[in-house]
Amino acid sequence: MIEDQKPSKTTLESLGEFALIEHLTKAAKVTMPSTKLSIGDDAAVLNHSGETVVSTDMLVEGVHFDLGYMPLKHLGYKAVVVNLSDIYAMNAQATQVLVSLAVSNRFTLEALEELYAGVHLACKTYCLDLVGGDTTSSKKGLQLSVTAVGVAPKTGAVKRSGAAESELLVVSGDLGAAYMGLQVLARENEVFKANPNHQPDLDPYNYLVERQLKPEARKDIVNLLENLDVVPTSMIDISDGLSSEVLHLCTQSDVGCRLYEEKIPLDPQLISVCEEFNIDSTTIALSGGEDYELLFTIKQDDYDKIKGNPNLSVIGHMTPNADGVCLVTRGNEVIPLKAQGWKAF
Amino acid sequence: MIEDQKPSKTTLESLGEFALIEHLTKAAKVTMPSTKLSIGDDAAVLNHSGETVVSTDMLVEGVHFDLGYMPLKHLGYKAVVVNLSDIYAMNAQATQVLVSLAVSNRFTLEALEELYAGVHLACKTYCLDLVGGDTTSSKKGLQLSVTAVGVAPKTGAVKRSGAAESELLVVSGDLGAAYMGLQVLARENEVFKANPNHQPDLDPYNYLVERQLKPEARKDIVNLLENLDVVPTSMIDISDGLSSEVLHLCTQSDVGCRLYEEKIPLDPQLISVCEEFNIDSTTIALSGGEDYELLFTIKQDDYDKIKGNPNLSVIGHMTPNADGVCLVTRGNEVIPLKAQGWKAF
Repeated sequence: MIEDQKPSKTTLESLGEFALIEHLTKAAKVTMPSTKLSIGDDAAVLNHSGETVVSTDMLVEGVHFDLGYMPLKHLGYKAVVVNLSDIYAMNAQATQVLVSLAVSNRFTLEALEELYAGVHLACKTYCLDLVGGDTTSSKKGLQLSVTAVGVAPKTGAVKRSGAAESELLVVSGDLGAAYMGLQVLARENEVFKANPNHQPDLDPYNYLVERQLKPEARKDIVNLLENLDVVPTSMIDISDGLSSEVLHLCTQSDVGCRLYEEKIPLDPQLISVCEEFNIDSTTIALSGGEDYELLFTIKQDDYDKIKGNPNLSVIGHMTPNADGVCLVTRGNEVIPLKAQGWKAF
Repeated sequence: MIEDQKPSKTTLESLGEFALIEHLTKAAKVTMPSTKLSIGDDAAVLNHSGETVVSTDMLVEGVHFDLGYMPLKHLGYKAVVVNLSDIYAMNAQATQVLVSLAVSNRFTLEALEELYAGVHLACKTYCLDLVGGDTTSSKKGLQLSVTAVGVAPKTGAVKRSGAAESELLVVSGDLGAAYMGLQVLARENEVFKANPNHQPDLDPYNYLVERQLKPEARKDIVNLLENLDVVPTSMIDISDGLSSEVLHLCTQSDVGCRLYEEKIPLDPQLISVCEEFNIDSTTIALSGGEDYELLFTIKQDDYDKIKGNPNLSVIGHMTPNADGVCLVTRGNEVIPLKAQGWKAF
């Protein structure tokens, strides 16, 4: 599919590294006051009014994405967004991003333009500057590395380690959809392989597929919390599944937790597709991953400020460490929570 | 060679991602006052007293390094050092680094320990903190991505674009050695392939090989310039060869340059090995690359401050743009300078 997107084809060899970088990044405009020097020097220069927050991630073809399902523009967008999610998970504002890629010469200039169109769209959507990166060749496949930079709020970056007993556990949005979106795409791909004339009808799965292909980071939640005057005591983003992230918060805060199955927010489409696939929706929400929602704890006194907000669900409360990290099922059983998130190896 | 370094072998699958990251990064101690939060959260938190400088690079097996010549510890060290060089090229101090890697399962835990031993050694040598990164699997080979962070001096980061007519062009150290070191290693590798009992004698090439395998970034030059009270007007590091970098400075500063062949600093070992290989040493110095020396311009008034310093060579002066970028040869010929540096594609 990479070679069929546009009729005109330009090989990367014909351009050279410097011309390629200039071509791909010329759309990058400096819009943030904190960007003092952007692409084109040995390093970018930033001037943040508060603490600087920085995070980096690597995405590898065949491991983190499959170009058979994932259009390159979506990949560029998603690669930036998943890094921004880490910045927002500090209750910080993302301000700049650096994008490096290694590509084999099977990619054309037009393919990389698609990828960068996604990067530029993410920068525009989230109001941040592309300030650097590296573009080089790989022996095989596509590898992306994104570094996101942000600025912490005056109240300080929110760590994973700040949760205390009796605080409330809150999650944004809903869970499990991105994982089921991937299952739907994988099933369609198998059908397509068996019958290349098959026209998939993804309409009944549109929400799930969009959550997989075009996830969004919850900048809006960081802004919402600021507007509600709520400073979370601890925070993490959900990339590996709810179970795994709850366990991280509890371990690093030295507390236990009771998580209530009936409180876990699920989209109606997720529930019906889980029935279609004969999979338990709670399992998917706990272990699916790639939700990029924010999971955080707040003091009980702040409950009234968030109560009834459609973007936020209270799903549990923190307990003494000795009480363990437990799921309270719909049947009122109390079972220890286990991480079964995505495995990198 | 990766599989022969140690008798005990631990597969990456047996550890899992979180345990692996914790194992590899446990040696990372926070030593910089500007590191407010290090590895173990969604992002690192930094508090710089001045402008923040950030740069990133990607290194791909088979493109940027060959594990047949390059021990993993050296690779980890070099991957950090080449990024630091970009920070020093802003006349800034490097303070933190983030290291991401994607590895195929042919690598053992012991192999990654070697790689990280090099990363930790670079952090210790250059006084900086390892504050983040990502460790994941790849389908094939090893890919490394390093992001270096630093703090600009009070006088401001030095850009490529600040050079003016009549200023002096200065370079640190000597040039071309790393490239010839690679040629020596490649030759030995061919001999070894033909005769596996061959014992290479690299002693006559020790300086060149060390420049290739264990390059150093010129933190000392940034400190020296500060002590001499010299603020360069423009600066770049030499990664792609002197020609390429002189052209970058001139283009971005909108000036020309006269570069004197006889002034280009060459190590005696480089000269003798170039004779042995029957290669012109000036060509190697101009186009070799991977020197990681600093190239910068200073005002004529600052000449007395650097005069006679064994670490610095004045190799030319800046001219009006219309005069072009020229090399003045030993035979007093004036020829246009061309970039023939390393090609990424």
